[in-house]
Amino acid sequence: MFTLDEKSLRENIQICVDKAKQANPLVPSITNTVTVNFVANAQLAVGGSAAMIYLPDEAENIARICSSFYINMGTLLPVYAETLPRVIRVLKECHKSWVLDPVGIGMGALREQLMLAMKECPPTIVRGNASEIIALANIWGIDSGDQHSGVRGVDSTDSVASARSSAVAIARFIKGAVAVSGEEDLITDGENVVISQGGSAMCCKVTGCGCSLGGVTAVYAGLADPLIAGVAASAIYNEASSYAEKNCRGTGSFQVEFLDRLYNLKGTEVAKNSLRIERA
Amino acid sequence: MFTLDEKSLRENIQICVDKAKQANPLVPSITNTVTVNFVANAQLAVGGSAAMIYLPDEAENIARICSSFYINMGTLLPVYAETLPRVIRVLKECHKSWVLDPVGIGMGALREQLMLAMKECPPTIVRGNASEIIALANIWGIDSGDQHSGVRGVDSTDSVASARSSAVAIARFIKGAVAVSGEEDLITDGENVVISQGGSAMCCKVTGCGCSLGGVTAVYAGLADPLIAGVAASAIYNEASSYAEKNCRGTGSFQVEFLDRLYNLKGTEVAKNSLRIERA
Amino acid sequence: MFTLDEKSLRENIQICVDKAKQANPLVPSITNTVTVNFVANAQLAVGGSAAMIYLPDEAENIARICSSFYINMGTLLPVYAETLPRVIRVLKECHKSWVLDPVGIGMGALREQLMLAMKECPPTIVRGNASEIIALANIWGIDSGDQHSGVRGVDSTDSVASARSSAVAIARFIKGAVAVSGEEDLITDGENVVISQGGSAMCCKVTGCGCSLGGVTAVYAGLADPLIAGVAASAIYNEASSYAEKNCRGTGSFQVEFLDRLYNLKGTEVAKNSLRIERA
Repeated sequence: MFTLDEKSLRENIQICVDKAKQANPLVPSITNTVTVNFVANAQLAVGGSAAMIYLPDEAENIARICSSFYINMGTLLPVYAETLPRVIRVLKECHKSWVLDPVGIGMGALREQLMLAMKECPPTIVRGNASEIIALANIWGIDSGDQHSGVRGVDSTDSVASARSSAVAIARFIKGAVAVSGEEDLITDGENVVISQGGSAMCCKVTGCGCSLGGVTAVYAGLADPLIAGVAASAIYNEASSYAEKNCRGTGSFQVEFLDRLYNLKGTEVAKNSLRIERA
Repeated sequence: MFTLDEKSLRENIQICVDKAKQANPLVPSITNTVTVNFVANAQLAVGGSAAMIYLPDEAENIARICSSFYINMGTLLPVYAETLPRVIRVLKECHKSWVLDPVGIGMGALREQLMLAMKECPPTIVRGNASEIIALANIWGIDSGDQHSGVRGVDSTDSVASARSSAVAIARFIKGAVAVSGEEDLITDGENVVISQGGSAMCCKVTGCGCSLGGVTAVYAGLADPLIAGVAASAIYNEASSYAEKNCRGTGSFQVEFLDRLYNLKGTEVAKNSLRIERA
Repeated sequence: MFTLDEKSLRENIQICVDKAKQANPLVPSITNTVTVNFVANAQLAVGGSAAMIYLPDEAENIARICSSFYINMGTLLPVYAETLPRVIRVLKECHKSWVLDPVGIGMGALREQLMLAMKECPPTIVRGNASEIIALANIWGIDSGDQHSGVRGVDSTDSVASARSSAVAIARFIKGAVAVSGEEDLITDGENVVISQGGSAMCCKVTGCGCSLGGVTAVYAGLADPLIAGVAASAIYNEASSYAEKNCRGTGSFQVEFLDRLYNLKGTEVAKNSLRIERA
C-alpha cells in the first residue's frame, strides 16, 4: 500500500502490460466451463501461458511452479470441494499471487464453504461485480456498512459506488487489491481508489467478459503490485471493449474485435486509459 | 392448446421476441460442455440472463427464482444423476416452464434413467431433431406409430415429417409443445402444427446451433405460451441463420454473422419468417 | 509401414481429405473442456460428425459404432479414471483407430496411471508437441536417447528435431504413427519421416490449435493409413493457419479465418502443402 501519483501509475501500467507480452508467465486457472475458452484466449492474447485444471494434485503441482493463479467460482463441480481447499493452501505456502472471481456467490452450500476457506488463505486480488463484492464482505464478516441488493444469477443488482466500502474493507483484510467491475471500474488497495473509465455496455451481453478480465488480472498479478495489476487489467479491457463496440455489428463480431484488440494493444496505449485517483 | 390463426401467431411472435429483450429474464441452464458458451451467448443476444449450473442445491435454489429453465442432456457428467432428478421436482413444484433438449438419447444407462424420471416431471417444451423426438416417444411408451431409424451420435437419421406423430403425442402427453428441428422445423402443441421455414443447412456444420436454439426457446418459454415460444425461437433462428449463410465465407464467420443477427433482430422482423399452420 | 514416394503421398492426402467431406464419419471424443467447442467445429469443418463423451458406458457404446476415436488428456476429471481404461479396451477389441493427445503429461498421478494403461491398449496415432512426445517415450520406458527439457503447463520447451528419436520409437512400439507439432511438423510411422511445413506461429496464441489438430487427425484416422492421416491433418492445418495469419488482424479474427478456410479447403489444395520425406 502506497500513495499513488498519476504519472507513476501510468508508467507502471505500461511496464506491466509490456512485461506480460515479453515474459509469457505461466498462469493456471480453475475456472468455469462456460467461459473457459475465452479466459484462456484472453490470457494468451495479453502474453500469458494458460493451463486449466480440475484435479487436486495437478492443481497443487502447477501452483508450485506458476507465476500466479486464477480461481473463478462460476460453475462449481463436486471435485472443487477437494481441489480448491488444497490449492489455496499451496498458494499461501508458496507466497504466490492469485486472483479470486467470486461468481455466483451465495448460490449454494459448497460455494459458501469454499468462500469461508478462502478467508484463511486469502487471494491477492478479488475481482467481481458490485453485488459479488458486497456479498463477499458479508460472508467474511467484514463490516462495510454497504447495503446489499443481492446477486441475481451471475448479474449485479448493485452499483459500483455502493460496493466501495466493501471493496476497501476486503482490500485491507487481504492486504491486496479489490477490483469492482461496472460502468466505471473501481480498483482499491485499501488506501487508494482508482476509478477506471471507458469500456462498453456490450460486455454485459457477451458471456465471459468479467471472467476473462479476472484471468488477465491474474496474468498481471504475478508481475506487478496488486493495485497496478488490477488497474492495468481494467485499462486494457476498457480500451479493447470500447474499440470493439465501435467496430462491431453485434455481439458476435464484438468478441472477434475485442480479442484482436487485446492481442495488439501496447503498454503505451493502455496507459492512456481514462482514470482518476482518490483516497479510500 | 388453442386454434391458431396466422395473424395472431405473428403478433404473438413479435411480442415474445421484444419482451425478452426488455425483460432480461433469468434463465438458468444445465447443458453440455461443448456448446455451453454458444448457448449462453445466444441467450444473452435475445435478451435473457444466462447462468449455468452443475450442483444439485445450486440448481434447486436458482430454479425457485428463475423465469424458466433449460436442460440439455448433451454431455452427462456423474453429478447429473443427483442434480437432474432434484431440479425437475422443484421445477414441477414451482410450476416453472422448462425446455428439454434430449441430445444423445439412447446412448447409455443414466441417460435412459433420467429420461424416465422426466416422464413424471415433464418439461413444458421438448426441442430436438427428428430421431431424438421419435426415441423419446419410444422411451416414454407413447405409441406414435413412427418408424425409428435411430440416433447416430448427435445427428438425426430421420426426417422431420417422420417424427410428426411422435411430436404430437409427446405434446399432448406433456400438455406443452414439441419442436422438431430440421430442413423445415415443426412445432406442435398437440392440436396445431406450425411448419417454420428458412434457416441454413450450414447449421449442421456448426456445433451448438440446436443446443442454443433450445436455450433461446427456454428464454421465450418463461414469457409466452409453449407453442408461441417454440415458434418464435424457430423463427428467429431461421432468420439469423439464413442471413448468416448469405453473409459468411465459412463456418467460422457463419457463427459471427449469426450471433450479430440474433442480437439485432427485432420482433417485427422475426414475425415475418415464412411459416404455415396445419391441424395436428 | 511402407516406403513413401512423394507423388503417392500427395495423392493419398487428397483422397483422405475429400473422403472425410463425403463420408461424414462418426468420430467421438473424450477431450478437455477448454477447447472442446473448437475441436468439434474443426471436426465438422473437415467433414466429421463430432460427439463428446464423459461417462464410461456411453464411451464404450459409441466406441463400438464409431469410425475412429479421439482422446485428449487436457483437463482430466475424476470420471476419466473409469472411462478411459474402459474405452481403450473396447477400442482395442474392436480394432478401431484412435488418436491420443497427451496434453499435460507429467502433471499428476491419474494422468501417469492412464498413460501407462495406454501402453497396453495403444493408440493408432499419437499427436503432441515435442516435450509431450519425449515425456511419453520416457513414461513408456522406450529408450529414445532424447534429452528432455520438460513440459511447462501445456507448452513445449523442446524443439521438434529433439523429439525425433522418441517419435520414431513410439511409432514403432504402437505400430502406428506419431505426429510432433512445432515450427515444422514431423510425422513418422517408424520407417518414414515426413516433415510438413508452413503454418503460423499465431497458433501458439490461440488455445486449441493443437487439440483440434488432434481431433481432425482422428477424423482422418478412420479413413486412411496412420501416416497418411497424420500428414493430411498437418497439411490442412498448415494451409488453413498460414491463410488465417495472412488475413487476420489478431487472434480473434485468426480463429474465424482459420475455421472458414478449414471448411473450404479441397483435397487438391491440401495436397500441395510443402513437405519432404526422409528415412527414420
